[in-house]
Amino acid sequence: MKVLKKAALGAVLVGITASTVYAAVKPDDAIEYRKATMEVIGWNFGPLGGMLKGKVPFDAALAKRNAERLEYLAALPLEGFPPGADKGEKEKTTAKETIWEEPDKFKDLFEKMGSESAKLAEVAASGDEGAIKTQIGEVAKVCKSCHDDFRVKH
Amino acid sequence: MKVLKKAALGAVLVGITASTVYAAVKPDDAIEYRKATMEVIGWNFGPLGGMLKGKVPFDAALAKRNAERLEYLAALPLEGFPPGADKGEKEKTTAKETIWEEPDKFKDLFEKMGSESAKLAEVAASGDEGAIKTQIGEVAKVCKSCHDDFRVKH
Repeated sequence: MKVLKKAALGAVLVGITASTVYAAVKPDDAIEYRKATMEVIGWNFGPLGGMLKGKVPFDAALAKRNAERLEYLAALPLEGFPPGADKGEKEKTTAKETIWEEPDKFKDLFEKMGSESAKLAEVAASGDEGAIKTQIGEVAKVCKSCHDDFRVKH
Repeated sequence: MKVLKKAALGAVLVGITASTVYAAVKPDDAIEYRKATMEVIGWNFGPLGGMLKGKVPFDAALAKRNAERLEYLAALPLEGFPPGADKGEKEKTTAKETIWEEPDKFKDLFEKMGSESAKLAEVAASGDEGAIKTQIGEVAKVCKSCHDDFRVKH
């Protein structure tokens, strides 16, 4: 119990401190960072989307590896959206104002990206092509849902 | 033993397949991806470098979190340097030709980044400010060493 409480406190402290540290960054830097996180996520989703469409040879091991990466990466972009980083001077952003208006909904979608990717990693370990492709589709739905609600169309 | 062998084989297979998948990408896409990975790494190293210079308040929990991230992230950039991605048409690269001439040395430095970051995460868990700052310096040395040898000055 003591350990758990300490760990929980540690998480809260990291949360607060990280927010403080990252809220102090320039909007342009935050925009550049969050774009980079989405680029890295896109690179890792790419072959999975390709498998779903039949454009990349099916590969359960690669699906598993990239799904694990997506689960991890889902936790990274959020701190790139601190208060005030809805507009930059140099960096163009495709982030909608709705991100700062509905932060909980936005955060939930990243959590869902993480949980659906974790599920994909599990399914991928089974090697079942049909089940893997179905679950890739579930991850893709989360991506689309978030882009529809929170990203300017381009 | 059987499990270990299978895991090792899986890693090799993923390596081969991932190389095949990612070697087929356009140089511009590879350049954009690897730049994004370095941006995400830089964002996470930033507060650590700041702590070392006294520009960011010392925070052992944040140091631990970011060190763990750096350990993970160290494995991501390499596939952004496939054969042929030394030049792009649109994307500017600051990658030196030496990356493709001395791939093992380049790879070793990313492994060292991972191991020194892992050590930082361990040291950070102790909360010892002096030891943490010393180890942040060790991680910084790896960054500098790789940039000196493999990145065009800018």
